[in-house]
Amino acid sequence: MGIIVQKFGGTSVADAQKIHNVANAVIREKENGNDVIVVVSAMGHTTDHLIKLAKEVTPNPDSRELDMLLSTGEQVSIALLAMAIQSKGYKAVSMNGQQVGIITENIHSKARIVDIKTEKLKKFLNMGNIIVVAGFQGVTSEGEITTLGRGGSDTSAVAIAAALNADRCDIYTDVEGVYATDPRIVPNIQKTDIISYEEMLELARVGANVLHPRSVETAKQFNVPLRVRSSFKLDNMGTLIIGVDNMEIYKPVAGVAADSSQVRILLSNLPDIPGTAAKLFGALAKNNISVDMIIQSLARNGENSIAFTVAEEDLKAAVETIKNQNDINLTGEILTDEDIAKVSIVGAGMVDRPGIAADMFRALSEKNINIKMISTSEIKISCLVEKNNAKEAIKALCKEFGLESNEAAVVKGDLPDV
Amino acid sequence: MGIIVQKFGGTSVADAQKIHNVANAVIREKENGNDVIVVVSAMGHTTDHLIKLAKEVTPNPDSRELDMLLSTGEQVSIALLAMAIQSKGYKAVSMNGQQVGIITENIHSKARIVDIKTEKLKKFLNMGNIIVVAGFQGVTSEGEITTLGRGGSDTSAVAIAAALNADRCDIYTDVEGVYATDPRIVPNIQKTDIISYEEMLELARVGANVLHPRSVETAKQFNVPLRVRSSFKLDNMGTLIIGVDNMEIYKPVAGVAADSSQVRILLSNLPDIPGTAAKLFGALAKNNISVDMIIQSLARNGENSIAFTVAEEDLKAAVETIKNQNDINLTGEILTDEDIAKVSIVGAGMVDRPGIAADMFRALSEKNINIKMISTSEIKISCLVEKNNAKEAIKALCKEFGLESNEAAVVKGDLPDV
Repeated sequence: MGIIVQKFGGTSVADAQKIHNVANAVIREKENGNDVIVVVSAMGHTTDHLIKLAKEVTPNPDSRELDMLLSTGEQVSIALLAMAIQSKGYKAVSMNGQQVGIITENIHSKARIVDIKTEKLKKFLNMGNIIVVAGFQGVTSEGEITTLGRGGSDTSAVAIAAALNADRCDIYTDVEGVYATDPRIVPNIQKTDIISYEEMLELARVGANVLHPRSVETAKQFNVPLRVRSSFKLDNMGTLIIGVDNMEIYKPVAGVAADSSQVRILLSNLPDIPGTAAKLFGALAKNNISVDMIIQSLARNGENSIAFTVAEEDLKAAVETIKNQNDINLTGEILTDEDIAKVSIVGAGMVDRPGIAADMFRALSEKNINIKMISTSEIKISCLVEKNNAKEAIKALCKEFGLESNEAAVVKGDLPDV
Repeated sequence: MGIIVQKFGGTSVADAQKIHNVANAVIREKENGNDVIVVVSAMGHTTDHLIKLAKEVTPNPDSRELDMLLSTGEQVSIALLAMAIQSKGYKAVSMNGQQVGIITENIHSKARIVDIKTEKLKKFLNMGNIIVVAGFQGVTSEGEITTLGRGGSDTSAVAIAAALNADRCDIYTDVEGVYATDPRIVPNIQKTDIISYEEMLELARVGANVLHPRSVETAKQFNVPLRVRSSFKLDNMGTLIIGVDNMEIYKPVAGVAADSSQVRILLSNLPDIPGTAAKLFGALAKNNISVDMIIQSLARNGENSIAFTVAEEDLKAAVETIKNQNDINLTGEILTDEDIAKVSIVGAGMVDRPGIAADMFRALSEKNINIKMISTSEIKISCLVEKNNAKEAIKALCKEFGLESNEAAVVKGDLPDV
């Protein structure tokens, strides 16, 4: 007997039949002897419809009023799901963000949660209710309605699980769990049974869209075991995401991800004067241009070259920014390369295994794939390759690191029933 | 400079264009130098749509969850109207029932307002905002969302006006004001410029649908001047509804109403024993059958006869109830008459003018209209006539009491700018 928080997205509650399916999944967990809190998003395309309504009224709706408008979407879902659960003979109550007391910053459209009141949640749980909570929304300490922005409902669920010290937070999606790479590229890829928060974060940032990094960050911060699982296959346990400290054996490489939305900028003949890089990247940051990989070559003849990648849509602005940066003595050319893809391997295990990087480079070279740039972090190694090499690179890396099979990982310590 | 509360119904905010029209009407009152609070209902058919959604989930939705669901309708309207007002360069904030603090009884789907918090309303007004409030909804002291049932949004507006001691509450509708009778029957009928709460209540109860009696009762209780006016003709001042004490000169008859939804039941040869009527009407009340007019004839030969009217749909149940009432010694027949209509004249002035009833009866007899039953109250005289005489009776009475013209009524005392 524990507390389970479940989260279902908009497609899972898109119509009455689907809402009943969700009710069944909720009741199943209740019948397992757990207290259940279920967090839901707005039905199907409700949010898009509401935004369209607002745009009909004014092209630039105020963010406070937009939050007031959009928060109705989840309120509709929670009422309908509570009705569906009740119709099957179980006690249920719905609660919106105001009622729970999901306290956020005083910022509209992308507020962060600062506190979750648990008094009413506990009261309703103690009365034997399944509680249906509106995701994506909160309220400021002044009572203003806020929304949480992208990944909001997942974050609501994780934060509630953290506040109640829940045994687990189950994120139900339309996929069966987390894959080591995109199944469209490597069709025989296996679902991952277990992965660490850190690996999941790296995979999310390089293009795996199952969970928004924000919800994973929150789960990591409060050590909430997360499960990504299928709304349609309730017997499938999906992927468990936990702290790396709780994993005893894991694969050195948990996943392979690719990102083809970046372009490379190469500046040659930069003066080797301290502060040049700071000026350059300071100017880019000032113009809201995020830089991903950065390589600075060794100084030679008093000159440097710097290569870095930015998002495709920022390319023009980045080049303009550099040209206008008069305090950098830019004598060389600004070379740009749009024919690139970033292929990354992610794994908490690579920290202890120095050979992983070499294995990656060898696997790529065996397929005659040229590496244009390399960057590494604690648990990630990324290589820039030509765009049309990306898929082959992914396949080669999945094979190299044994991701096509699904060997069991082992969990140590005092974990929940997984 | 005063406080004006405005209320717009669902048809007035049915689409973006109409919402802009409402915004103009709101701004107009702001430009007159007033603080403005505007109460709105859900857009067009939103409530019906939400009820349909609920019924798709379960045939008998829980009333708490239904309130959670339906209250989203007004929340959408307030956000959109606030956006529309802002787009025209004015400060506006929307507030739902929870945010204002419209405190109701702990009853769902038809809660009554017990208190309205004014702190936040005053704060936002002092910041120069037009406040857009969700009608029809409230919140219990425990934070549960409630709805107010029929006439709810009008009642929200009146109650807010009372709480803020507003100068006036303007109810915008699709008619130009209150008419002395149905314009479809007497086409040259004039809009009434001024009428008392009491008269309005009697007219509402006998079939004039402009305002729900509940909102008029609330206005009467707190002495809030009400104005019923057109959403489409903003220059038209509509009808002012105030306390009879504030009216110096008024017509003896303010309106004529008809109700053809009742049937008459006649019981003859009832024993003249004390308690017979009590038993009879007690049994009907116990079966939730409302009785309207009651006439008991004088006892003669130790026998009574009683005639009364009930709603058409209650006829069968009423007759069953009477037949099963064994403690009444019912020896005569139960006669029923469905061919009746009740025609009423309503006027606070008739109290001081004893000739009014006689004038009514004469006017009807001059048209050869037979009167089947008569009942009177302080400010109303009702006559039962044959159904097909009803329209002619209305016309004759409007003519008799000068309701075809629109003589000005005079208001005494310290009334707002009307």
